[in-house]
Amino acid sequence: MKKKSIGIGLLGLGVIAGQVARVLTEKADELAEKVGCPLILRKIKVLPQDLKRPQAKKMSARLFTTDDDEFFREPGIDIVVEAIGGEKPAFDYLKRAINGGKHVITSNKELIAKRGIELLALAQKKGVGLQYEASVGGGIPLIAPFKHDLVANKINAIYAIINGTTNYILSMMAKEGTDFASALKKAQKLGYAEPNPENDIEGTDANYKLAILTSLAFQMRVRPQDIYCEGITRLTGRDFRYARELGFAIKLLAIAKQNEDTIEARVHPVFIPQDSFLAKIDGVYNAVHVEGDLVGKVMFVGEGAGARPTSSAVVADVVSSARKIALGVGSLSTWKEVPGKTIKPMADIVTQYYIRLAAKDRPGVLAQISAVFGRNKISISSAIQPESDEKTKTAEIVIMTHPAGEKAMQKAIRQLGGLEVVKEVSNFIRVEDIEGG
Amino acid sequence: MKKKSIGIGLLGLGVIAGQVARVLTEKADELAEKVGCPLILRKIKVLPQDLKRPQAKKMSARLFTTDDDEFFREPGIDIVVEAIGGEKPAFDYLKRAINGGKHVITSNKELIAKRGIELLALAQKKGVGLQYEASVGGGIPLIAPFKHDLVANKINAIYAIINGTTNYILSMMAKEGTDFASALKKAQKLGYAEPNPENDIEGTDANYKLAILTSLAFQMRVRPQDIYCEGITRLTGRDFRYARELGFAIKLLAIAKQNEDTIEARVHPVFIPQDSFLAKIDGVYNAVHVEGDLVGKVMFVGEGAGARPTSSAVVADVVSSARKIALGVGSLSTWKEVPGKTIKPMADIVTQYYIRLAAKDRPGVLAQISAVFGRNKISISSAIQPESDEKTKTAEIVIMTHPAGEKAMQKAIRQLGGLEVVKEVSNFIRVEDIEGG
Repeated sequence: MKKKSIGIGLLGLGVIAGQVARVLTEKADELAEKVGCPLILRKIKVLPQDLKRPQAKKMSARLFTTDDDEFFREPGIDIVVEAIGGEKPAFDYLKRAINGGKHVITSNKELIAKRGIELLALAQKKGVGLQYEASVGGGIPLIAPFKHDLVANKINAIYAIINGTTNYILSMMAKEGTDFASALKKAQKLGYAEPNPENDIEGTDANYKLAILTSLAFQMRVRPQDIYCEGITRLTGRDFRYARELGFAIKLLAIAKQNEDTIEARVHPVFIPQDSFLAKIDGVYNAVHVEGDLVGKVMFVGEGAGARPTSSAVVADVVSSARKIALGVGSLSTWKEVPGKTIKPMADIVTQYYIRLAAKDRPGVLAQISAVFGRNKISISSAIQPESDEKTKTAEIVIMTHPAGEKAMQKAIRQLGGLEVVKEVSNFIRVEDIEGG
Repeated sequence: MKKKSIGIGLLGLGVIAGQVARVLTEKADELAEKVGCPLILRKIKVLPQDLKRPQAKKMSARLFTTDDDEFFREPGIDIVVEAIGGEKPAFDYLKRAINGGKHVITSNKELIAKRGIELLALAQKKGVGLQYEASVGGGIPLIAPFKHDLVANKINAIYAIINGTTNYILSMMAKEGTDFASALKKAQKLGYAEPNPENDIEGTDANYKLAILTSLAFQMRVRPQDIYCEGITRLTGRDFRYARELGFAIKLLAIAKQNEDTIEARVHPVFIPQDSFLAKIDGVYNAVHVEGDLVGKVMFVGEGAGARPTSSAVVADVVSSARKIALGVGSLSTWKEVPGKTIKPMADIVTQYYIRLAAKDRPGVLAQISAVFGRNKISISSAIQPESDEKTKTAEIVIMTHPAGEKAMQKAIRQLGGLEVVKEVSNFIRVEDIEGG
């Protein structure tokens, strides 16, 4: 049976929901042409304070309700779009929508990272679609490629810059030699960082997004707490200086790798070769580098946040759901887990390391430091002493290692900290040898 | 009705078809898991000489037929994959397959560029799917983003490096100062260029791909002959040197723009800013930069050719068709044209220009040259005389213009050629001021 129109219900009226409402209205004709019938915004569930937003004042008051029951009882809604953010009450809302036989679309990364598989299983049971393209990378197609375009590949690796705020801060630190605190302040002033920036700078946002991408790419349940996560707050101007001198850039990467029967998933700052593709991604841009056994390397780049790019993905999901409803072909949402894979503990990962430390400036110090690495079977690829402070008799030493285990490295760092000649292990940063591209 | 298995028929056994057959066999279990039932390769239509290929000898002889009728009468085929290439006989084969109710998948850019809309209309009429993701950019998702992910956007511009051979040659010319002929020879030796390279170096291959992308992105019929096309054979080491000195890179770009009611589509070498994203794409990589009104700028990068990346796209299309067949939901292939748009003639486009010419080395020459530009209302942004040859009394002059119309520029170039003081207009190259990204 062909439908005459498709009804949309919107949860929330923040910047993203407001922009989605605007696109559905302003592009109504083009979207109707693409779907095969009109998309009609039937109801918007708001909080009382949302009604004061300028966006609300431009719209018909009949569209709004502050009452959950009224929203969910509205008969003309085929598709529910959630753009509230956060785990609660979004989870309960989507569950209720799915149980009511609605197709659902969300841009909520926290919700999908924490409860996505649960919701997908429910959607599958109820025969409705759950789509979440906008939850990672704004308008950059990232969910669809893993679901469809790269489906013939074994995904071997993902290296992703998926948090624009931290990439903006790191780009500024690299280019202008700004320290972390001033770079953060500037990003906040320009609106690229939130007044409370913790979610971004501690890596939590990237963690959610990596949980979503890895679950999909490796077809297994990867929860946010399964992913090692370290933010960018420990980085200093000195680290950027040494990185540059050694031929590296510093980026906050979300990294995932698939081996025989284990996977790695981690978010932390890394040294990557200056001439690698990701090293060149500056500012608020996001970039996801994927390696598949057939496709080789593919990269997806774009603005990873903001109301307009996010609305591009949300409305594409709406069109895709609506086309299926209009044609009466139903939804194809499924969740299939390939069993037998486990997540490698962080202690077991192997990578190279950059270590910067402050030591007493006297003969024999490097020998003692090297001995600690040697005892832990970590081999040093280079050790330089770029600076020493005459007054405090302190030398700064920068060490790059060959590939070594994280467990051994953590032990070595503790032992270095205990050496009488070492004043401080100032920083250590992992190194990813991403090839060219 | 749920199907127990999906039958595949393959047209051709060249490198791509051979690789597709290999993936269908080697990944049979994973693909069956993803589709919901097994994919079974039922028949391969080959030429007698294909049977001598090593790939053929590894497969059961029962799979092969050299007889068209036998192939098309095979009852168990649901999906026909065409990987012969060229317009004929591929067109007739696909038409026959579609008329026989088969879903069809092709990696054939020439066919889709020349006859795609005809085949899509037929597929729509017959209720089957026609998919062609592999026809542009190998395994990089490029068709799907325009069909699905970016569907809410008005596409304002596409800038694409979509021919790996020419990008490899141009990268070599830029990096090693190699001249065109030696770069081509080296590319041929390494297998990056065909023994007969015309299709690549004259821009024909990029032209086909741009016809496909623009038809889809702008929802209008753009034929290869509608696209202005110029290859890379006129570029010399000197052009690369001046480009670098002026802050540009030289790339063969496929360019498309959408204005109010006209579109531009053209393939030619361009100067682009050295710090633009596309300037950094070297070697055989492809990159497509898309600008949408909502999404802003998004870029897709990867290996644009080769059997493995291409098989990634072909098999993804097979899985997508097969899922729909397995679920009994039918195909969604459609072709919808938005009427009222026309293609702007090349004479009407406006861009900046780089002009290199050889003139007599004597006073007043630049004044005469400038006068020609002035008469044609073209304003010069810089004119330099980097070199002069004492012996031949020849000065090389390099001119960069402000935005000017192509018609005026062509006229100016003819007039320059007629000046007594101008020995030769050595080259002229358009300039695209692609912003950052």
